[in-house]
Amino acid sequence: MLLRGRPRTLGAAALLLLLLLGFFLFGGDPDYGRPRSQGAATFDGDPPADPRGHNRSDCIPPPPPPPKCELLQVAIVCAGHNSSRDVITLVKSLLFYRKNPLHLHLVTDAVARNILETLFHTWMVPAVQISFYNADELKPQVSWIPNKHYSGLYGLMKLVLPSALPPDLARVIVLDTDVTFASNIAELWALFAHFSDKQAIGLVENQSDWYLGNLWRNHRPWPALGRGFNTGVILLRLDRLRQAGWEHMWKLTATRELLTLPATSLADQDIFNAVIKEHPWLVQPLPCMWNVQLSDHTLAERCYSEAPDLKVIHWNSPKKLRVKNKHVESFRNLYLTFLEYDGNLLRRELFGCPCPPPPGAEQLQQALAQLEEQDACFEFRQQQLTVHRVHITFLPHKPPPPQPHDVTLVAQLSMERLQMLEALCRHWPGPMSLALYLTDTEAQQFLRFVETSAVLSARQDVAYHVVYREGSLYPINQLRNVALAQALTPYVFLSDIDFLPAYSLYDYLRASIEQLELDGRRKAALVVPAFETLHYRFSFPSSKAELLTLLDAGSLYTFRYHEWPQGHAPTDYARWREAQAPYRVQWAADYEPYVVVPRDCPRYDPRFVGFGWNKVAHIIELDAQEYELLVLPEAFTIHLPHAPSLDIARFRSNPTYRDCVRALKDEFHQDLSRHYGAAALKYLTALQQPRGPA
Amino acid sequence: MLLRGRPRTLGAAALLLLLLLGFFLFGGDPDYGRPRSQGAATFDGDPPADPRGHNRSDCIPPPPPPPKCELLQVAIVCAGHNSSRDVITLVKSLLFYRKNPLHLHLVTDAVARNILETLFHTWMVPAVQISFYNADELKPQVSWIPNKHYSGLYGLMKLVLPSALPPDLARVIVLDTDVTFASNIAELWALFAHFSDKQAIGLVENQSDWYLGNLWRNHRPWPALGRGFNTGVILLRLDRLRQAGWEHMWKLTATRELLTLPATSLADQDIFNAVIKEHPWLVQPLPCMWNVQLSDHTLAERCYSEAPDLKVIHWNSPKKLRVKNKHVESFRNLYLTFLEYDGNLLRRELFGCPCPPPPGAEQLQQALAQLEEQDACFEFRQQQLTVHRVHITFLPHKPPPPQPHDVTLVAQLSMERLQMLEALCRHWPGPMSLALYLTDTEAQQFLRFVETSAVLSARQDVAYHVVYREGSLYPINQLRNVALAQALTPYVFLSDIDFLPAYSLYDYLRASIEQLELDGRRKAALVVPAFETLHYRFSFPSSKAELLTLLDAGSLYTFRYHEWPQGHAPTDYARWREAQAPYRVQWAADYEPYVVVPRDCPRYDPRFVGFGWNKVAHIIELDAQEYELLVLPEAFTIHLPHAPSLDIARFRSNPTYRDCVRALKDEFHQDLSRHYGAAALKYLTALQQPRGPA
Repeated sequence: MLLRGRPRTLGAAALLLLLLLGFFLFGGDPDYGRPRSQGAATFDGDPPADPRGHNRSDCIPPPPPPPKCELLQVAIVCAGHNSSRDVITLVKSLLFYRKNPLHLHLVTDAVARNILETLFHTWMVPAVQISFYNADELKPQVSWIPNKHYSGLYGLMKLVLPSALPPDLARVIVLDTDVTFASNIAELWALFAHFSDKQAIGLVENQSDWYLGNLWRNHRPWPALGRGFNTGVILLRLDRLRQAGWEHMWKLTATRELLTLPATSLADQDIFNAVIKEHPWLVQPLPCMWNVQLSDHTLAERCYSEAPDLKVIHWNSPKKLRVKNKHVESFRNLYLTFLEYDGNLLRRELFGCPCPPPPGAEQLQQALAQLEEQDACFEFRQQQLTVHRVHITFLPHKPPPPQPHDVTLVAQLSMERLQMLEALCRHWPGPMSLALYLTDTEAQQFLRFVETSAVLSARQDVAYHVVYREGSLYPINQLRNVALAQALTPYVFLSDIDFLPAYSLYDYLRASIEQLELDGRRKAALVVPAFETLHYRFSFPSSKAELLTLLDAGSLYTFRYHEWPQGHAPTDYARWREAQAPYRVQWAADYEPYVVVPRDCPRYDPRFVGFGWNKVAHIIELDAQEYELLVLPEAFTIHLPHAPSLDIARFRSNPTYRDCVRALKDEFHQDLSRHYGAAALKYLTALQQPRGPA
Repeated sequence: MLLRGRPRTLGAAALLLLLLLGFFLFGGDPDYGRPRSQGAATFDGDPPADPRGHNRSDCIPPPPPPPKCELLQVAIVCAGHNSSRDVITLVKSLLFYRKNPLHLHLVTDAVARNILETLFHTWMVPAVQISFYNADELKPQVSWIPNKHYSGLYGLMKLVLPSALPPDLARVIVLDTDVTFASNIAELWALFAHFSDKQAIGLVENQSDWYLGNLWRNHRPWPALGRGFNTGVILLRLDRLRQAGWEHMWKLTATRELLTLPATSLADQDIFNAVIKEHPWLVQPLPCMWNVQLSDHTLAERCYSEAPDLKVIHWNSPKKLRVKNKHVESFRNLYLTFLEYDGNLLRRELFGCPCPPPPGAEQLQQALAQLEEQDACFEFRQQQLTVHRVHITFLPHKPPPPQPHDVTLVAQLSMERLQMLEALCRHWPGPMSLALYLTDTEAQQFLRFVETSAVLSARQDVAYHVVYREGSLYPINQLRNVALAQALTPYVFLSDIDFLPAYSLYDYLRASIEQLELDGRRKAALVVPAFETLHYRFSFPSSKAELLTLLDAGSLYTFRYHEWPQGHAPTDYARWREAQAPYRVQWAADYEPYVVVPRDCPRYDPRFVGFGWNKVAHIIELDAQEYELLVLPEAFTIHLPHAPSLDIARFRSNPTYRDCVRALKDEFHQDLSRHYGAAALKYLTALQQPRGPA
């Protein structure tokens, strides 16, 4: 790709010369088994095996599965937001059928690493190890190859795995992100046993006529044995490849072919095939059902209508699931199975295989074991301890450019508030960090929702973080913390999803932050006064003056004026009406304003789950840490009505629920006293006033 | 069970005598292969095989799988609402792993048959045949056996399968409803190949010490070989059992044991074990992983920690998923996988197996193939054709006693309206038939929601019918038709879920129906005037007088007064204020009142999916069929506010959506003209008035 625009042939010829030189200088150096210096290579000159061998391989009886607890090694190249989602579906299918411990070697860019590291850390699947490798560091090794395939540069990276993976790793199964398992990967691993002494690469024959070179006039594919091989699923004997001087070998072949061919069409696959054409002894053909290829003009039916079983399906068309072929509906159903599968259910032990538990799993087990099922608040305790799987930046996202006064809107929601997103985008043109509490199935519905919304798909500055559902209580503060942790601007506006801010709020907040010279030195929480409408259709005020008119007309109220006035009373709405400049207010019991604070503000207390007291506790924490509360005279946000959530309904109807919230409050206050000592006394005193609990 | 309270021993002794007599009279008659007359039996006197054989069976290498397309036979006994849900989870796990055509033989009571027949009919899974057998007809054959097991009479019915199943059926796998597959059933079927010439019953050893008889003092289990066998999974050679005179055999043994034992403790399992103890040559022990038993004190760990693989798990404790054992969490995850699995995804073809398609599948495929993806209304067309899986009476339900004027409230909802149910139950004390549009996962959430609600779980007269989600548009009229078809009273109140009826409405409607002497002869639709509140907290009027006060105060409006007055204008609210008696109103364009009609009223037109015109079309249909529209002077129902549904939001924001609804309207009118001829002209004329479409 980097060579595009330069005289390619010349560059390729020079490289070829260099490589040939290297071959003569270093040929025969048996330094396999340790990190390989560039250019070092060995070459095995055995005569090629029968090239037609790969057509008959389906007849070989299946070898016995590997020993019960053998660790299987898998490598995947993954870059960007969309591939990260794909790889998770692949891994779900892998984990569903596996019975062996797995070690996943993930070659990732920074985006994918960030996503997948968080995901696997919170997924806590037993008997799965993860290692990351920096794809960006590997780029120079392949960036000289012009490539027309949609997978781009990352599509070529499988070529460098023998040197990129640890030198003591002898065997690995390499997978494309667009494959889905329909069987136990141990059966695939067992096929290593079929390799002859020299063979180093296991591949399934290509299930299209591409490499036959007769698809259209002047169609000139890269050289291949017959139909060639597909590299969506590869069994690699890394040890033998290193020994055979793989790096040298493929670069030599690629460079030579690029003298006459303009670019690779199918990325690494063209080069693998060209190398195999030259050194057929390298390849062990695999049974076709281990890579059933579902492109538009696939010949795969020959395979799957005769084979007793499908093992791996491969969506090897840029159209992916929208590909057209006779049985695509059935294959799609298999894929959707894992796309929508509840990943939490894969936290299954491997019986009889002693494996170190995932980090944190033991402590979690112990904490859960100490809970008493008879405790009336058991559900709350369990929910607090739950480690939710987290998929940050579920959709493509562009971080906002660094600006010293920028503000991210932070909120959380579940499926039933999805229709708020478009309105929110219209009201808040700035960056947002939103945590969504979803099942795996709902995450896919959410994806389609965004794709079909012109408003949402136009926005790259909204980061959506999926927190997967588990348990019966809404983990509101854990969600807020996920969204807060992913905000990338110096300031955050801590909002709720059923509020729409004034159209001008984003600009106004940035201007206010600048004017107040907050820039990190001053601990301030800017209060955005909150209002509500009880009508579910109303026209949003475009200014403070308009808002006041609606307020006087009784079309708007100050927020929770009827049921919970103390929640916002300290904002002092009377003063706000007249205010021309920000004014300071004092904390009072049960105060829970919507505030703008520096990103490094205290986190929300995750013990508050479900409905009740979750924001109040956070404002106490801010006050205890001596944040000034400054009300902004032109800021406002308005709550839209909605049917009460299930959690509110339970809170209202269930005395035990209310007792549990009260118990959490008490424990929170005890912790507060421990942390802040005498300074926390005022919160306890306030609590003991007969105002009643939230 | 029927014998309970009679002198059991005497009855049993008499039966024993009868059976012995039968044995001597008919012994040796080789009439297997045709329906067996009671008492006819053959007996094979071979010496018993080594009784310890079943302890060593795990070492036998697995036999080759059955031929690719061999039809596998499975029998399950299932009765009642809860077992029907269980059996569906079992069948999902079975279908997930299977690669062979299946024939399911379901022995059911009337409730289960009704549920499962609808379910399988709408599920349309390729390569699955279903046969039903009437459990009630089989009852007399086992009802004489006193049984203490929680499965009740149905637990004993596996004993009579050799005579109940078709005489030409030679082999069958018999499953309890509480087993879950974790592998391909063909592997289990293949174990028939291990049977010796005489063996007829394949069973896994019991994984508890129950039959050792040392669990407590005076613990006296039924006789068994060693630990005995568990009958949750059985391989039956029906042909051999019939030949061996099975019916005679087990009745003889059971009768004899019941002379000294008061009852069976583990239902059929006690009798199977007693027969096997006497005729050990009958049994082929199966590897333990084919029935991993998860009771409280299970010894199953010995099996699953050594076996390479779990094949079938069995929740054989009355505690089911709440059972306590070391690894229950992992097993529960496997079970939840199928409990929550989207059953639609199991509509997968078996490649390479020619099987007749499920009834209606071919026509459906053809209709779908004729749709044009480029059509702007493609989504609408596709949704109209979708056959949704339907699970009627998802929860236990008691049909209302037949009463000539009774009324069922009919409505439909999805997950986000669940919190309406409790209020609805308080407002409507009569029978309800509700269609719920849910995913499989949501159906489980719904189940827990009802279980934890005192209000909902107290009601046995509310029938919940789950219609499984598929497609992007809410199939509102299909849902209404499902709920309507399941209403069991002579009249139905066709409501919507976001309406709460007057507290008195149920009684008032029944009284009105009686007074108006409708009783089926008169085609009348009683109109229940509709109102709405825009406030999401308000106190519900307890009388018409109170309602009128609220109306005058502006706290209530007539329904859709602001946006869609023509929808209810013909109800003539001014007249209603004053009315003392029912009054007749005339149809007018766009009229869509809430009405009470006889159960056999016209169905809703399923072409209307999503938002718009779905009720209007139904009222036209009523008018065209000359239903009188009679407004009831004391009836009212009130709409509660909610955030707009996704469908309404799409309707409002998307011009294509509105165009498609308009196209559906036009087609509806064309059909109307075809049906009703000139009489339908008035609807078309009304349509052409410039009132604008819905």
